Amino acid sequence: MKPETTLFEHALRENAQQVENLLDGVLSPTHRSDEITRPDNLLAAMRHGVLNGGKRLRPFLVIESSKMLGGDAVAALRVGSALECLHCYSLVHDDLPAMDDDDLRRGQPTVHRKFDEATAILAGDSLLTMAFDIIADPDTPLPDASKTALVLALARAAGIGGMAGGQAFDLAAEKQAPDEQGIITLQAMKTGALLRFACEAGAIIAGADAETRLRLRTFGERVGLAFQLADDLLDLTADAATMGKATGKDAARGKGTLVALRGQPWAEQRLSELVAEASELLEPYGERAGVLVAAARFIAERKS
Amino acid sequence: MKPETTLFEHALRENAQQVENLLDGVLSPTHRSDEITRPDNLLAAMRHGVLNGGKRLRPFLVIESSKMLGGDAVAALRVGSALECLHCYSLVHDDLPAMDDDDLRRGQPTVHRKFDEATAILAGDSLLTMAFDIIADPDTPLPDASKTALVLALARAAGIGGMAGGQAFDLAAEKQAPDEQGIITLQAMKTGALLRFACEAGAIIAGADAETRLRLRTFGERVGLAFQLADDLLDLTADAATMGKATGKDAARGKGTLVALRGQPWAEQRLSELVAEASELLEPYGERAGVLVAAARFIAERKS
Repeated sequence: MKPETTLFEHALRENAQQVENLLDGVLSPTHRSDEITRPDNLLAAMRHGVLNGGKRLRPFLVIESSKMLGGDAVAALRVGSALECLHCYSLVHDDLPAMDDDDLRRGQPTVHRKFDEATAILAGDSLLTMAFDIIADPDTPLPDASKTALVLALARAAGIGGMAGGQAFDLAAEKQAPDEQGIITLQAMKTGALLRFACEAGAIIAGADAETRLRLRTFGERVGLAFQLADDLLDLTADAATMGKATGKDAARGKGTLVALRGQPWAEQRLSELVAEASELLEPYGERAGVLVAAARFIAERKS
Repeated sequence: MKPETTLFEHALRENAQQVENLLDGVLSPTHRSDEITRPDNLLAAMRHGVLNGGKRLRPFLVIESSKMLGGDAVAALRVGSALECLHCYSLVHDDLPAMDDDDLRRGQPTVHRKFDEATAILAGDSLLTMAFDIIADPDTPLPDASKTALVLALARAAGIGGMAGGQAFDLAAEKQAPDEQGIITLQAMKTGALLRFACEAGAIIAGADAETRLRLRTFGERVGLAFQLADDLLDLTADAATMGKATGKDAARGKGTLVALRGQPWAEQRLSELVAEASELLEPYGERAGVLVAAARFIAERKS
């Protein structure tokens, strides 16, 4: 095992634990003074959708991008956790019968299977809402200008022009297979937008200048492309036991992927290029970029 | 017709037109520079869920509360429109088959009937996200501190401790009828929280002090209680043609309402008291409170 991989995996686990702890606290029965109360069943569904031992890759990118640029650690943890809430909302809704109709997620019943469909819809809605709550909360130690920038960037990444729009394209792709450009757009929106936001958020938290913010955003874009290619490769090759969810579904549904269009060797070559491009973008930061560079490699090479 | 009613109805129509125009522009195919693109079908579904000739009561309360306290008119219109996006998301999701399973909304097919269920889920998600986008957007002329306060207050009003939590209680009420306190909590969350936010938002936009903010919040609470009582009375007495949606459903499902528990005469008496309490709260503002006082009366006395 390469030393940087070990260092990376250690950092990933540590961060995941911190994110889990923070979200466990945020999603507690104790309601905020300006809330009325929190229904037990809905809270349990939100917790089931979030506290499930995920890798917490998105918060990891927020936290490490911010750290590299000297941002506040508490702020980065909170913004990363907000992003994880939002990511988990998208999984809860994507799993619904009207969408991908999945029964399993990380080896556990999906929220609508464990609770019911209505509760899963509301749990997703509440997790999406909670993401903005966490960013704007006085406990997030950031200037208001940074909070506004984060809310705006997150809303754009998650909304019709980002993740939700990508999911709409994904639904359309089941009826008519998109061409290569269509696949690229779909993936950039559905999975790319949040990964790009994660890295850009680190720059916003650190109060970086516009050039740095753009650089981190571009890094996140490369990471997002690598993530999706690796995912498409895994969908072809992995089994459900490794992934903790149904696999081979994209191929079964005739959904186009770049791997299907261009072949596995091309995809593996492209993955290497993307990791190299991502690393190059962080060269100005020297050793401080080590963990992020390892993260890009991990994302490209992951087996689950 | 009382002169103040005429004045009020004129102001309501004018504001509704401005909100409609703003949302027509925000929900246009032209995407923002930090979005990738906007899928036509999802955008059409969002527009169907929003641009449907609603009364725009919530934006009206934002705009008039802000105006009474000297807030910026453009900011109030934008925040009011954001709130309307969020309100419309809740209607789109509440109408879903897994929730209230409604085919009609304001005399038109609901979003999942006109499009499909998956698109309706995504349209709701995207409208909720868009609400925060509009508030944080640089086009909303407010200091960042006010935007942060608005994002936080809106998230709390809409999330598990507010509207979404209220909807969860509402679902539970179909299985087991709540007692009087349960009904009060459910209604304060499901419909009260957003109306309360609307009035408080006006104070935030105007940069009012904490005492004024609390006063407007309390006014909004009274208006919310009146709104719900009037709604429950209408559900008993109005027909579907007047309401543009199915009526008598709450009673048919055995859902408890305060009107069912305490009777119509009690409800009418309580409505008068709530309007009086609401008006009294705005006494310090004299004539400037005229439109808001008329709004409270309109909400209590409305026939659709």
